[in-house]
Amino acid sequence: MRTPPLRTPTTVNALLSEIADVGRDPRRGGYSRHVFDAAERELREWFAAHARRLGLDLDVDRNGNTWAWWGAPGANSTVTGSHLDSVPGGGELDGPLGVASAIAAIDSLQSSGWRPTRPMAIAVFAEEEGARFGSACLGSRLMAGQIDPSAAAALADAAGVTFGAAGRDMGLDPAHFGEDRETLDRVGTFVELHVEQGKSLAAGARPVGVASSILAHGRWRLDVRGQGNHAGATRMRDRADPVVVAARIALIARDAARSRDRHRPARATVGRLEPVPGGTNVIASRVNLWLDVRGDDDSAARSLVDEIAAAAQDAAQEEGCSVDVVEESYSGRVDFDEGLRERLSRLLGDAPIIPTGAGHDAGVLASFAPTAMLFVRNPTGISHSPEETADPSDRDAGVLALAEVLRDVDQAV
Amino acid sequence: MRTPPLRTPTTVNALLSEIADVGRDPRRGGYSRHVFDAAERELREWFAAHARRLGLDLDVDRNGNTWAWWGAPGANSTVTGSHLDSVPGGGELDGPLGVASAIAAIDSLQSSGWRPTRPMAIAVFAEEEGARFGSACLGSRLMAGQIDPSAAAALADAAGVTFGAAGRDMGLDPAHFGEDRETLDRVGTFVELHVEQGKSLAAGARPVGVASSILAHGRWRLDVRGQGNHAGATRMRDRADPVVVAARIALIARDAARSRDRHRPARATVGRLEPVPGGTNVIASRVNLWLDVRGDDDSAARSLVDEIAAAAQDAAQEEGCSVDVVEESYSGRVDFDEGLRERLSRLLGDAPIIPTGAGHDAGVLASFAPTAMLFVRNPTGISHSPEETADPSDRDAGVLALAEVLRDVDQAV
Repeated sequence: MRTPPLRTPTTVNALLSEIADVGRDPRRGGYSRHVFDAAERELREWFAAHARRLGLDLDVDRNGNTWAWWGAPGANSTVTGSHLDSVPGGGELDGPLGVASAIAAIDSLQSSGWRPTRPMAIAVFAEEEGARFGSACLGSRLMAGQIDPSAAAALADAAGVTFGAAGRDMGLDPAHFGEDRETLDRVGTFVELHVEQGKSLAAGARPVGVASSILAHGRWRLDVRGQGNHAGATRMRDRADPVVVAARIALIARDAARSRDRHRPARATVGRLEPVPGGTNVIASRVNLWLDVRGDDDSAARSLVDEIAAAAQDAAQEEGCSVDVVEESYSGRVDFDEGLRERLSRLLGDAPIIPTGAGHDAGVLASFAPTAMLFVRNPTGISHSPEETADPSDRDAGVLALAEVLRDVDQAV
Repeated sequence: MRTPPLRTPTTVNALLSEIADVGRDPRRGGYSRHVFDAAERELREWFAAHARRLGLDLDVDRNGNTWAWWGAPGANSTVTGSHLDSVPGGGELDGPLGVASAIAAIDSLQSSGWRPTRPMAIAVFAEEEGARFGSACLGSRLMAGQIDPSAAAALADAAGVTFGAAGRDMGLDPAHFGEDRETLDRVGTFVELHVEQGKSLAAGARPVGVASSILAHGRWRLDVRGQGNHAGATRMRDRADPVVVAARIALIARDAARSRDRHRPARATVGRLEPVPGGTNVIASRVNLWLDVRGDDDSAARSLVDEIAAAAQDAAQEEGCSVDVVEESYSGRVDFDEGLRERLSRLLGDAPIIPTGAGHDAGVLASFAPTAMLFVRNPTGISHSPEETADPSDRDAGVLALAEVLRDVDQAV
C-alpha cells in the first residue's frame, strides 16, 4: 500500500479568496452572480475543480443542482451544502460560505484520515435567491416537487431568457425538470452552513449557532396600471399616476409590518420597483412592484399580505388606477428537526439555538429529511449587501463545527 | 426652359406611415427612439432621403443637429422643424409630426411653384427629450451656448456610453461641441409644429392653434442613500430603507404640486425611480429618483422644488437615510414673440392662442429669434404615451397651416 501524500487542508478563507473577483458588480457594489450566468458558471467550475481534487464524484441533477459525492451515491447519505448564486449586489458569503466550508470540512476530514460509513455529499442548489427568475429556492423546490416544472421552465429573466432556455444552455433538458425522488431520497440528513443574517450571535461570545426555525415567507408581484401622459402638460387633477399608488403601497407595507413586528416577527419590504416606461418627463403608465412578506407563521404572513393588498386596492382606486396582485412564491414556516438541533447544539458545546427570517434550501429539505443549519456569526447582522461579513477566525470556527457535525451525523443511527 | 414634372406632394400621413415600424418598443409599447441609437439613425436617413428628394442641401452642425436648406444657407432664414427622438415608449407624433409636416409643407410649396425670397430650412434637433443622456433640448441648448460642452460630452446613458462617444460614432468631434453662433445667427424666424400636449384644442372646432408660452421647467436627480440589508432578517425598527424615503418624496411632490396647480399651473412628477440593487428580497441601499417640476414662472418653479427638497430632507432624516439633490437641467418660462403669434393667429383665421406645459427646442430658439409654435389638435390630450394621437385630417390641416405660415414669414420684412 502506498503512503497517502501529506496534505494541509485548504482553509475556507483561502477558498473564498480564490473567487473574490468572480461576478463583481461595479454599479451596485458587491457581487451579482445569478444562476447559469457567466459568473455562476465560473463558480460551478471552481467548485467542480475542488470536488475533483478531493476525489468526489460530480453529478448535476435534472433541475440543475450539483452534487459531489464522497463514496457511491446512495440512501441515508449525509449531505451538506448551500448555493453559489447571489442577490443583485450581494455579499461574498451568502451562500458561497456554505459551499466553501463544505469543501474545507471534507478536506479536513480526509486529511485527518477519517472515512465516512455512509455516502456523504456536497450539494450546490440552483437559483436559491430567485434573483434571476423570480422564484426563490427554485432548484431545491423543483426537486421536491413543490413547483410545476413547465411553469418553472417558462419563468423569464429581465432579458426575456427563460429558465428552460438557460437550462438547455447548461446541458439540461427542461422536459426533465421537476420532482426527483431518486435524488431526494438519498438525503438521510441535510446540514447547511450559512452566514447569520441578523444579530443574534453578534452580541455573544459564540461564533457558531444552530437554527431553530425560518419565518413563513413569500413574494408577490403587484402590477399597478394608470394613464401614461406628459409630465408637464397634464394637470395634477387629471392624472392617474401609478407611481403615486406604488409609493402609497410601499408605505402601507412598511407601516403594517412595523406595527406587527413589535409583537411577533413580521416583515414587509419593497426592494424592487419599476415604473414603465420610466422616462423623467413622463407620467408612468404602469409600475411593476415586488413585495417580500414574512410572518411568524402561515396565518400571520397571509393576513399581512391580505391587509397590504386590500389597502393597495383602495390606494389604486383613489388615484383612478388598478392593481393586480400575483403570488410568485411562498414557503410556510419551517421548524428544524428538534432532536437534531438539540444534539448538534450539545455537540458544539451548547451552541446558541436561534431563529432566522431568511429563507434557505434547508427549509425545503426539512420536509423530507432531518435537516439542520449552522450559522456563522455576522458582526453587523447586515446581509444581502456588499457590507455582509464575518471574521476570518469565525469562518474557520464554522468549518470546524461543520466537520464535527458531519462526523457526528455519519455515526448517528 | 423645361416644364417641371407634375408631382403630387407627399402627405404627412404617408410620410409617418413610412416610419411606423422604426424603433417600436415591445416592452413599453409605442416607440423608443433615442438620439444616435439605431432607430434614430434610421429616422435621420429617412429625413435625409426626403430632403434630397426635395433638392434641399443637408448639413449636420457641430452639435448633431441636422439642417436641410432650400437655397444657400444665410442670414434671416425661415426655419421650421422639430426632433425625431422620443421618450421611452412614446407616441408616433412627438416630434416626427413636426419634421414630417415640414417636409410635406415644403413639398407642397414647391409643387405649387412657389419659391422663397430668403433661405428656408428644416432643422432636426438632437436629444430634445433628454431620454438618453438626461438633458432635454441638448442639441439646441448646446448650439445656443446654454450648456457647458465638456459637461455635455461627459453625460452618460444607462449603458455608460457618453454623449461624446456616441457623437464620435456619428462623425462628430466632441471638442467642437458648444455654442455655434454661425448656425444660430442664420435663423431669422423659427416655427415649430407639434402635436398638442394637452386638451386646449380638443373641445373646440379648430384643428390648429398657436402657442403663447411654455412653463418654466427642469429636472432634478435625488439620490437617496440608506442601509442595504436582508428583507427577511432585518427587523422593521432596525431599517434605514431608501425606498420608504423615495415613496414619501413621490407623495410630497404630488401633494405640493396639486395644491398649487389649483391656482396657477404647477406640476411635479416622479416617472423614473431606480432602487439599487433592486432585489426582491433585499432592502435597497440606494434609490435614484428623478423629479420633473414645472411652474408658471421661474420663482414658482424654484419655490416648488425648494419645498419638495426640504420635505425630502426631513423624510430622509426620519428614516436614517440621506438625500442629495442635483439639478440636471432647467429652462425658464418662455413667452413666444407676441407680434409673431398674433400675426400667425390672424393668418390662420384667428387660430386659438394657447399655452403649454411641455418644453420644446422652440423655447430655446425664442431667446435668439422671433419664434412661434403651431399645435395640432390632440383629441385625448395624451402624449408621451403610445396613446398619443391626432386625426389624419387634422395632421393635413397642420401641414396646410405650416405652409401658409412659411410663405407668410418669408414675405414678412
